[in-house]
Amino acid sequence: MTDSYQQLEQRFKQLARIEHALTFLQWDQHVMMPPGGNEARSESIAELTVLHHEKLISHKTQDLIEKAGEGKLDHIQKCSVQEMQRTFLQASCLPTELVKAQSLAGTKCEHGWRSQRKDNDWPGFLKNFIEVVALTQEEASIRQSVEPDRHKTPYDALLDLYCTGDSSEMITDIFSQLKEELPILLQEVLDKQGEYDQKCFTETFSIRQQKLLNKELMSRLGFDFAKGRIDESSHPFSTGDRGDQRITTRFRENEFSDALQATAHETGHASYERGLPEQWDGLPLGQAVNMCIHESQSLLFEKQLFLSRSFTDFFTPIIHQHFPAIAKVDSGKLWEIMTRVKPSYIRVEADEVTYPMHVILRYEIERDLINGNLETKDMPALWDEKMQSYLGLSTAGNYTDGCLQDIHWTDGSFGYFPSYTLGALNSSQIFGAIREEQSDWQERLERGDISFITEWLGKKIWCKGSSLSSQDLLKSATGEGTNPSHFLRHIRDRYIDRRY
Amino acid sequence: MTDSYQQLEQRFKQLARIEHALTFLQWDQHVMMPPGGNEARSESIAELTVLHHEKLISHKTQDLIEKAGEGKLDHIQKCSVQEMQRTFLQASCLPTELVKAQSLAGTKCEHGWRSQRKDNDWPGFLKNFIEVVALTQEEASIRQSVEPDRHKTPYDALLDLYCTGDSSEMITDIFSQLKEELPILLQEVLDKQGEYDQKCFTETFSIRQQKLLNKELMSRLGFDFAKGRIDESSHPFSTGDRGDQRITTRFRENEFSDALQATAHETGHASYERGLPEQWDGLPLGQAVNMCIHESQSLLFEKQLFLSRSFTDFFTPIIHQHFPAIAKVDSGKLWEIMTRVKPSYIRVEADEVTYPMHVILRYEIERDLINGNLETKDMPALWDEKMQSYLGLSTAGNYTDGCLQDIHWTDGSFGYFPSYTLGALNSSQIFGAIREEQSDWQERLERGDISFITEWLGKKIWCKGSSLSSQDLLKSATGEGTNPSHFLRHIRDRYIDRRY
Repeated sequence: MTDSYQQLEQRFKQLARIEHALTFLQWDQHVMMPPGGNEARSESIAELTVLHHEKLISHKTQDLIEKAGEGKLDHIQKCSVQEMQRTFLQASCLPTELVKAQSLAGTKCEHGWRSQRKDNDWPGFLKNFIEVVALTQEEASIRQSVEPDRHKTPYDALLDLYCTGDSSEMITDIFSQLKEELPILLQEVLDKQGEYDQKCFTETFSIRQQKLLNKELMSRLGFDFAKGRIDESSHPFSTGDRGDQRITTRFRENEFSDALQATAHETGHASYERGLPEQWDGLPLGQAVNMCIHESQSLLFEKQLFLSRSFTDFFTPIIHQHFPAIAKVDSGKLWEIMTRVKPSYIRVEADEVTYPMHVILRYEIERDLINGNLETKDMPALWDEKMQSYLGLSTAGNYTDGCLQDIHWTDGSFGYFPSYTLGALNSSQIFGAIREEQSDWQERLERGDISFITEWLGKKIWCKGSSLSSQDLLKSATGEGTNPSHFLRHIRDRYIDRRY
Repeated sequence: MTDSYQQLEQRFKQLARIEHALTFLQWDQHVMMPPGGNEARSESIAELTVLHHEKLISHKTQDLIEKAGEGKLDHIQKCSVQEMQRTFLQASCLPTELVKAQSLAGTKCEHGWRSQRKDNDWPGFLKNFIEVVALTQEEASIRQSVEPDRHKTPYDALLDLYCTGDSSEMITDIFSQLKEELPILLQEVLDKQGEYDQKCFTETFSIRQQKLLNKELMSRLGFDFAKGRIDESSHPFSTGDRGDQRITTRFRENEFSDALQATAHETGHASYERGLPEQWDGLPLGQAVNMCIHESQSLLFEKQLFLSRSFTDFFTPIIHQHFPAIAKVDSGKLWEIMTRVKPSYIRVEADEVTYPMHVILRYEIERDLINGNLETKDMPALWDEKMQSYLGLSTAGNYTDGCLQDIHWTDGSFGYFPSYTLGALNSSQIFGAIREEQSDWQERLERGDISFITEWLGKKIWCKGSSLSSQDLLKSATGEGTNPSHFLRHIRDRYIDRRY
């Protein structure tokens, strides 16, 4: 190992220690902080963000990267420098004026959106949003120009921030397969589902008891409370570091399964973070490979594992212990309730069969917006057209439940949406590979034994960090890159044949 | 206002934003963090501490202070620069090697102390402690040499870190008056107290209900939960900033009044912080003047206000609402229980009559240690001699309940102890001044009306920040500097004449 490589590692570990501070200050802001703390907290976070940014994009960092690259390095060190180089480039390539203009326009647009969404006010939103899109197009084109070999379109350069390594060419191809087959499957599911009784609960489920139940679920999923905690927030999320995973969920008194699913989901994210390679802590190489893999872990815990018929059989008696009032609802009935499918306007409320159509719609719109193939003002018409075509629902004139429903685009976060569905596809593919290796997987889940899953993931996904691209990681773990047929088979198996 | 003064203010506000991050990361570490997070958290806090320290003691800060001092400034700006100068000097005067050696020796001594205290192992402790004392003597002598006009002895230079502006000459004088009169008063109190029935509770007080009761108390004391929160920790403390006060308390199931007193105490600290002058936020000038004034505010809320007979009359029905099982215990009886006096070995368990004797003992020992008039090895003998003389208790051979009971000295924090008793004296003096102005103070407290207290404190203490020295602040608010006769009268009034 060369001296300059060691110095470079030290520099990134120092940056990671500032990131640690930001992580927990932001967690506190969302989970603990009273409203009166917001001004000072925002100022402190901005101060640390600037300190971090200046240190990251400094000449000293650049020099160290260059010198380390010239030295004698082994394969892993080369990967490590490459990841640091990518982190440096992503942070340093944009002119400060553009970042400032984006921050201002994004804050203004997001702030306006909070009331405009409620008021169904598309014209009001459009006035701010045009500026956000224009500035994001500028950002995308600069990012593309920095790495022209990696990004074929401006949109690809944004995609790379979240779906690192997965191109829009690949995604468009995968999504066309889904668009072809999923609507047919959906119709079959809906026809089949008519047989089931869809009555829901009338009982009240105390939040206090739900908290205990969710903690019990986390323990059963391998979460170590000496290394993390669960709290409440308006939107479930997970954050923290290896030794201190913070996840949140939200509770409603008239229903308990949504919170459990959210908790299983966030526990999946947390498990991945905790399983990342300890020897690369503080280095970009030691981080999650991208959001499509991150989301595959959360969805594997939520949809493949927790929502499986076998795990439901195991977990139902535990639910009954916490809520004796529904002891009459057996695991078969509970599974019916939890796997109901219903096309709806709102993405975050969608089931796993219809969810991809929401994402494909957004993907196609954001890609065309950023690449200049769609005018911002024409977005609602296209949204309505696609909703009618993909899910049979009209959003004409209904912006609230249409193109104004998500926060993502308001501050210019384009390129994130595809990771939700790529994550779903990857999770089906990975869980399929685990099932093939473990023929008694259903009996194990019925006993609540999930160790074969976490051991497999630990060995084949988590411990790799960012040393492989997401597609290479999938190939090494499952024998092939993202292939949507596994997801389509999963939908058929679970929702039509009701096999698991 | 000059440009360089403005730049200097900006520099200190930037430092304050880093301090904000440290404040809440440390709060989280003590209140929320699971054990697994400790390593990464400690590293992140150390990183930010170094960043903060380097920025504070940099040449740029020094230049700005000098330039600002040369410019045309009004009176307040001059005070402000003076406070910044003092902050700069305190941080920059010690050589890095000494700070490192102190940190190592302090960590080692504190770590050893945790088991040595339990094991009554004075010789084991002494081995580490000699090093800590020697290094602190070195620190004191350097700090004295930087400001020889302000500090007559090395110990005074340490005292100035906590009891800023109050000299050991003044404190020794005040403490000799207490030593003369307090033991006589104590004997009178104990004789008088024999009449009371001292039986305590046999009921169980649920933590959940205690939490609600403590929040109710905080609201009654003017705490705004939109600008703060209360949580649990093993040692009660308060921290945070103006808009986000974090206080903690601790609960026991067999008793409820200790938690209430701790909560009232921390609410006093928080009220002072919230009342500090907003226009000087982020500047040393806007901070609390010293720990003797800070402690006077917490003790005013705890002892003068909450523990008064009038407020007990008001608050007892609220306690009964939360704990109907003790509805038979009337406010007179409750007041008896809460104002019991009993000489004991342990400072933190002491009542307000005996507490000063614990502090005077420590003050005399630490002053003589640091000034080289007492050998470290002779400390236990002197401790025993003073305990016998001041409180009639022997600690011969009992180091656990003697000189090993406090954490303060283990890491070299000498000079802090006097602030507890100066705070008690100042609180009696301040509350006396308020009572004189408000003849119907008892009727008001019986109604739960404390607004006349917070308004008085806000106008005469809180809004002054550090613009006056603690003695000048007391003079402007009460007509004189710290005068122990008010405290002695308070002890007589409350514990002998049972007036309030």
